[in-house]
Amino acid sequence: MAPSITTFRWVPPFARGHVRDIRARWAFEETGIAYRVDLVDSAKTPEHRAFQPFGQVPTYRDDTVALFESGAIVLHIARQAPGLLPSDPAGQARAQQWVIAALNSVEPFANDLVMVDLFQADKPWSAMRRPAVIEMLRARLGDLAEALGDKPFLDDAFNAGDLIMACVLRIVPRDEILSCYPTLLAYLDRCTARPAFQKALADQLALYAPASDAPASVAEAALA
Amino acid sequence: MAPSITTFRWVPPFARGHVRDIRARWAFEETGIAYRVDLVDSAKTPEHRAFQPFGQVPTYRDDTVALFESGAIVLHIARQAPGLLPSDPAGQARAQQWVIAALNSVEPFANDLVMVDLFQADKPWSAMRRPAVIEMLRARLGDLAEALGDKPFLDDAFNAGDLIMACVLRIVPRDEILSCYPTLLAYLDRCTARPAFQKALADQLALYAPASDAPASVAEAALA
Repeated sequence: MAPSITTFRWVPPFARGHVRDIRARWAFEETGIAYRVDLVDSAKTPEHRAFQPFGQVPTYRDDTVALFESGAIVLHIARQAPGLLPSDPAGQARAQQWVIAALNSVEPFANDLVMVDLFQADKPWSAMRRPAVIEMLRARLGDLAEALGDKPFLDDAFNAGDLIMACVLRIVPRDEILSCYPTLLAYLDRCTARPAFQKALADQLALYAPASDAPASVAEAALA
Repeated sequence: MAPSITTFRWVPPFARGHVRDIRARWAFEETGIAYRVDLVDSAKTPEHRAFQPFGQVPTYRDDTVALFESGAIVLHIARQAPGLLPSDPAGQARAQQWVIAALNSVEPFANDLVMVDLFQADKPWSAMRRPAVIEMLRARLGDLAEALGDKPFLDDAFNAGDLIMACVLRIVPRDEILSCYPTLLAYLDRCTARPAFQKALADQLALYAPASDAPASVAEAALA
């Protein structure tokens, strides 16, 4: 049976195109693996938490394994068919390194700014903190730009590391922050111009196009 | 040649036992792979950044690949010899999932509290933010405790996922926070009681025992 992922039946407009299932969808498209999407009204139910302890989306299931964590799902998909991992073990280790670097060394700093600007925007400390949050995010982006250099991708060819890194860079405010790093901006655009990403994005947006009024947590949708 | 890792020649007392090379050391001990340690005075030099873009430790090198990111290093070591990964692909995917969950879904929240209490303790917003930071960290720990249940480890047997998760839980203040989750506390103690961890810890502490006065950034050491 085709593997399946879960995502939200409904998310608020600002989250559309950014729900974390986009990472799994993109990986499926790059590898040409057909997949099903199961919809949940909430990720906080005991039934869903049995597959995703932190009450988020997506989850993944195939005939052999059930997984959560978008990075782990993408790496697992990448091992099922060519398209997202080099063929040599060293190249695979480096791709996995960039997946983890994106998730542990860049995304937390990008998420911090989302917290300040969106989810904790009403807290008095958010405005006070913002300059420090931006300084730390800029430091990481500067380091990343240095590592990318003038290469088109982080390693020899587009792989799972670029997929996750691009998804993380999509969280960074484009005009205010990312545009200060022209090579990162071009890198992001190079990654997201891929037909596989465009298909994944279109599929996610199509799901929410006939926007229902079913309730869903705003925070769940964007930070899942 | 034996694989090698880099770490700091000197760190301040509070960081001893907590420098991120402990993760690689622990993985080497669990798998019985001999390794060398190369010392650096700073991780911010261009020479070091060529191997670690974000200016941190550890880095890893063997005859086939150079890597950074402690989670990626541990997974790579785990694939070289038995001891840290199940033999079946599904079990390996789940172990990798827990490595990434530790690094992306728990560690950022634990690090937030370190920032508030240590690295940004002098900022006026830190005290104001602290209750919200603790609330988010507690939510993650509660979810993790629920996922662990009454099992000894996150999956069937101790693996790379437990290694990284235990290292992340070591960042959480034990008396104030972690002790509120008795099963997580017991889990952490079960993991760190392993001879491999004890050897890794002793080796890191021995390095800093004859504490030199060479300078090193405090922030680098603890958050690397």
